[in-house]
Amino acid sequence: MKQIVECVPNFSTSDPKVVESIVGEIESIENAHILDYTYDDYYNRLVVSFVGDKDSVLEAMLKSAAKAIELIDMNKHKGQHPRLGAVDVVPFIPLRASKIEDCVKIAKEFGGQLAKKHKVPVYLYGVAAQPGRNDLDWIRKGEYEALSEMIKKPGRQPDFGPREVHPMAGATITGARKIMAGFNVNLGTSDLKIAKKIARTLHAKKGGFSTVKAMAATIPEKGITQIGMSITDFEKTPIYRVFELLKIEADRYNVPIVSSEFCGMAPLKSILETAAYYLKIDNLNEDRVLEVSVAKAMEKGGRSG
Amino acid sequence: MKQIVECVPNFSTSDPKVVESIVGEIESIENAHILDYTYDDYYNRLVVSFVGDKDSVLEAMLKSAAKAIELIDMNKHKGQHPRLGAVDVVPFIPLRASKIEDCVKIAKEFGGQLAKKHKVPVYLYGVAAQPGRNDLDWIRKGEYEALSEMIKKPGRQPDFGPREVHPMAGATITGARKIMAGFNVNLGTSDLKIAKKIARTLHAKKGGFSTVKAMAATIPEKGITQIGMSITDFEKTPIYRVFELLKIEADRYNVPIVSSEFCGMAPLKSILETAAYYLKIDNLNEDRVLEVSVAKAMEKGGRSG
Repeated sequence: MKQIVECVPNFSTSDPKVVESIVGEIESIENAHILDYTYDDYYNRLVVSFVGDKDSVLEAMLKSAAKAIELIDMNKHKGQHPRLGAVDVVPFIPLRASKIEDCVKIAKEFGGQLAKKHKVPVYLYGVAAQPGRNDLDWIRKGEYEALSEMIKKPGRQPDFGPREVHPMAGATITGARKIMAGFNVNLGTSDLKIAKKIARTLHAKKGGFSTVKAMAATIPEKGITQIGMSITDFEKTPIYRVFELLKIEADRYNVPIVSSEFCGMAPLKSILETAAYYLKIDNLNEDRVLEVSVAKAMEKGGRSG
Repeated sequence: MKQIVECVPNFSTSDPKVVESIVGEIESIENAHILDYTYDDYYNRLVVSFVGDKDSVLEAMLKSAAKAIELIDMNKHKGQHPRLGAVDVVPFIPLRASKIEDCVKIAKEFGGQLAKKHKVPVYLYGVAAQPGRNDLDWIRKGEYEALSEMIKKPGRQPDFGPREVHPMAGATITGARKIMAGFNVNLGTSDLKIAKKIARTLHAKKGGFSTVKAMAATIPEKGITQIGMSITDFEKTPIYRVFELLKIEADRYNVPIVSSEFCGMAPLKSILETAAYYLKIDNLNEDRVLEVSVAKAMEKGGRSG
């Protein structure tokens, strides 16, 4: 089976023209395929999901990063999501037949080339990082605004590139991780304090679920707030459990849940776990799903026949 | 894209050796792929799901039916599910790139050949049927026990084969239908009367959901009862809605829901609808699911590249 890698770069923009240019660079690579991209003003952030073989993903990532560095000026950037640079964070994710080690290699290759070409300082995070430097929050401490000060501190030498902030693009973080679920829940209150209290109850570092990061943001044009979460291990911490606990905490403040959304692609297992929980089904796995099972049977048939 | 047809034959047996023989006949056809098969004593019924191209599916179905006719004696058959014969009902279902009309043709071909080879009377049902004869319940009225009397009645001439019950195998029903969801809910009561009352509230002909057939059965070894349902259009009548209404009716009798299961394969859309309802997600469709989207992107990439 062909190795496939996913890449989910986060760029610091929500300007439709800039978005179009960045996405266009990825689309220009023949064997890179965009699955999804979303952006919005309140995070002022573009999140793209694309897949392909290793070489195509690396090439598409370098091209789109170059475009972002050309068009985004971090000096003018405001947004509710923590960020260090124009090309803020670039995780590579192993899908079919590829491994986390393969993705660590791609991340290092990407980081090295990006730093060399554009003089952007690059930090590795997660499993690709130097010991003690794996945490994204630690790397982003103080965000873009404090970066020129932080970068000089002991132990904060970038993994690639100069120990100096790029004048427009800031710094970039890259690494490898497993598939995770991005899940946002919209609350029927404009009170950010309440949303922050709820987010804290779920957040790993505040005593919440060990695989969950949660933050609160306002969506002013709708008069609501949002709990934005990433669930790094949705098999250990199923999404329904996070949702139900969030609901219980929201009830305390009489805040209704307006709606939810996956941020990026929804992993099939998280959908199956959810349906299985609410319908009380014991044996619901991928092989029980008609379309998935048919695709597998046909692939198998094709190989033998 | 290659045309794929699914077939979900129901055989009147739960004898493991007979099951093995029947399933073995399907497995012997190179391009027929079994997705799933289940059988149990209380229905005394084997349900197989398999897929393949038209010719392979027809061939596998004729071979497995021949084996069932050879091994099953309907004179000795007891079971809670309505049935007419050893090869009780054989629906053909259009999947990728195939249409319901294609499946009507296969059903007629299957019915014609089966009747000719084994002298089994064959009825067409659903869209393949003669006008006024589409309903499975109407065809199965009085079941196997009344068949020799019913078959002689006006308007009940079989579509293929003799107007005479096969001495061991009874009669067979075949046709074409769209994908449907088979869904069973287990109730924490051994009282079949209560289960029957609940089943009636859901059943189309009793004023329930227009796309749902529901029946009640006992599972004596577990001391529980089961509502067995088929939902012919799970897009119009999502499974979560059926489940929630069932729960409301069960509450009336203080009967808890023990567990649920898909009978046969679970259609992806029914899973997505369920997750979307409980998590309040607006935009959850197949293209938002990582694995499905990646498979599509790779298929597309393969064609162009």
